[in-house]
Amino acid sequence: MKHKIVQCVPNFSEGIDKDKIEKIIEPLKNKKGFKLISYEADQNYNRTVVTLIGDPYMMIEPLLDFFKVARDLIDMNHQKGEHPRMGAVDVVPFIPIENIDIEECIDLSKLLGQKIYETLDIPVFLYAKSAQSDDRIDLPNIRRGEFEGMSSKIKESLWKPDFGKNEIHKTFGVVAVGARLPLIAYNIDLDTDDIKITKNLAKAIRQSSGGFQYIQAGPAFLDDKNHTQVTMNILDYKKNPIYRIYETICMEANRYGIKIKSSEIVGLVPRDAIFRSLQYYLDKDKIEYKKDMSLQEIVNFGIKYLGLREFDKYKIIEAHIEDAL
Amino acid sequence: MKHKIVQCVPNFSEGIDKDKIEKIIEPLKNKKGFKLISYEADQNYNRTVVTLIGDPYMMIEPLLDFFKVARDLIDMNHQKGEHPRMGAVDVVPFIPIENIDIEECIDLSKLLGQKIYETLDIPVFLYAKSAQSDDRIDLPNIRRGEFEGMSSKIKESLWKPDFGKNEIHKTFGVVAVGARLPLIAYNIDLDTDDIKITKNLAKAIRQSSGGFQYIQAGPAFLDDKNHTQVTMNILDYKKNPIYRIYETICMEANRYGIKIKSSEIVGLVPRDAIFRSLQYYLDKDKIEYKKDMSLQEIVNFGIKYLGLREFDKYKIIEAHIEDAL
Repeated sequence: MKHKIVQCVPNFSEGIDKDKIEKIIEPLKNKKGFKLISYEADQNYNRTVVTLIGDPYMMIEPLLDFFKVARDLIDMNHQKGEHPRMGAVDVVPFIPIENIDIEECIDLSKLLGQKIYETLDIPVFLYAKSAQSDDRIDLPNIRRGEFEGMSSKIKESLWKPDFGKNEIHKTFGVVAVGARLPLIAYNIDLDTDDIKITKNLAKAIRQSSGGFQYIQAGPAFLDDKNHTQVTMNILDYKKNPIYRIYETICMEANRYGIKIKSSEIVGLVPRDAIFRSLQYYLDKDKIEYKKDMSLQEIVNFGIKYLGLREFDKYKIIEAHIEDAL
Repeated sequence: MKHKIVQCVPNFSEGIDKDKIEKIIEPLKNKKGFKLISYEADQNYNRTVVTLIGDPYMMIEPLLDFFKVARDLIDMNHQKGEHPRMGAVDVVPFIPIENIDIEECIDLSKLLGQKIYETLDIPVFLYAKSAQSDDRIDLPNIRRGEFEGMSSKIKESLWKPDFGKNEIHKTFGVVAVGARLPLIAYNIDLDTDDIKITKNLAKAIRQSSGGFQYIQAGPAFLDDKNHTQVTMNILDYKKNPIYRIYETICMEANRYGIKIKSSEIVGLVPRDAIFRSLQYYLDKDKIEYKKDMSLQEIVNFGIKYLGLREFDKYKIIEAHIEDAL
């Protein structure tokens, strides 16, 4: 039987008090069926980003326990930080990785949302692919006004929560739960320090300038390395595969006599996103391959064809769960 | 002084009666400042497409005369054809070609629209870039219901015309006038007869499948030539230049061991659209060039770099006006 794998990335509104942070994530540690990959606290943001990977159905009860501790330990009336927020747990996205589609992740987010309301009396907004109306797709739109503005905003008919009464939880606030596709943070390094040219290259590929539909991109200069990169988010790697972006940048850069030095994945990437792009090169080079090639083979080909730097199998989501299941 | 050049493409609802057609286009022949490039009648459509190129301000009075003859000779109550239509003259787009921007073309369409109403009592809808509301951007949306449905549709508050009363002209109907960017009909020939692969290539570039924002594309099989092509419309050649599409198809086709045979422009193309793409190749090959290279040089480079077939300077809009001004 194939395991259903999701990535789940709860964000909660405490990034300073280490003792509190440990207590809040405690219910997510050492559980069967999924793995706590990381929890990254940001002091300026006063916010912690948690990454879970594994069977989403095994996550539901531990997530509710996690919500309960966050509710008990965080009082939003006294929480301050640079990052906008509307709840003690601010947002929980489910991201399909393997053997599960976005529709099932939408259903999951609704299941969790309903339980959050029923067991903890916290109002829940469904967002992203789970949104029930267009104005709830983008999280910042729901969050506008933040915790402080939410007690009146939630009384407007437009902002009735998807689960719960039109009244915030007095210390927790409200939370957004939803499903979204994996977002890949990907950068292409160029052998130039010319930021203007790099911007032109970014414009060739990004949606906002007429480029590919699911690409956000801009130029960046790396001080420590003394070259530029096109830095981007790939919002749908099936429709805008990495190789297509890589090759388009390569083609456009040709015009300026500029070459790609290397490229990098920031954070984690689903196996399928890399494999899909390797297939292009393997097909082109008439190299035979198996669909179930090992993660190490994928890493080796990724370095060869996409010049991925600082890339090892632990950049691939699936590496973290090989032994968790 | 640089001449302002537009392309103007009035469509009128007579494609069968040659005598009528000649009378209707008579006011557009041999006029100072612009040139009647072609008028193509389609019997099945019962519709004629006229192409004018030149100084738009010199076109206004002759266009009004043309409208007047069309009004006198075409009775829409007895007009039938396969092409949807709502007026004796159905639509008039202004397209910026040289030394004029889209904003000025929008102003021009408003000027013409107002005069059509004032002198001929024909209701006018502004469409495309001239549209005053989102539901008037797409012509089919305005035209829905056609001539027969327009006498009641025009009485709805949503469909009050931009110029004129909420009553159709009894024999003429109504007309849409607007400004749009040049649309380039461009096809890339492939050395394969595999329509499925060709469809995959089209999907890589077209907006509707996640590709470039201003590209509509699909696969086609050419019976007489026994190969396929990716057939497309480029809706904004500045944001999605031809070379970028050509090179992306070339890159994607590599995967299947397929090569580009040639490519073709259907209809006319602005000089700037070809020149812009040649600049890519000339820059890449470090070949020096002048911005004012001759049309023949542009043709030669276009054949060399983009494999344009059946391409000569009369495919370029500007060739038709070199001697008209």
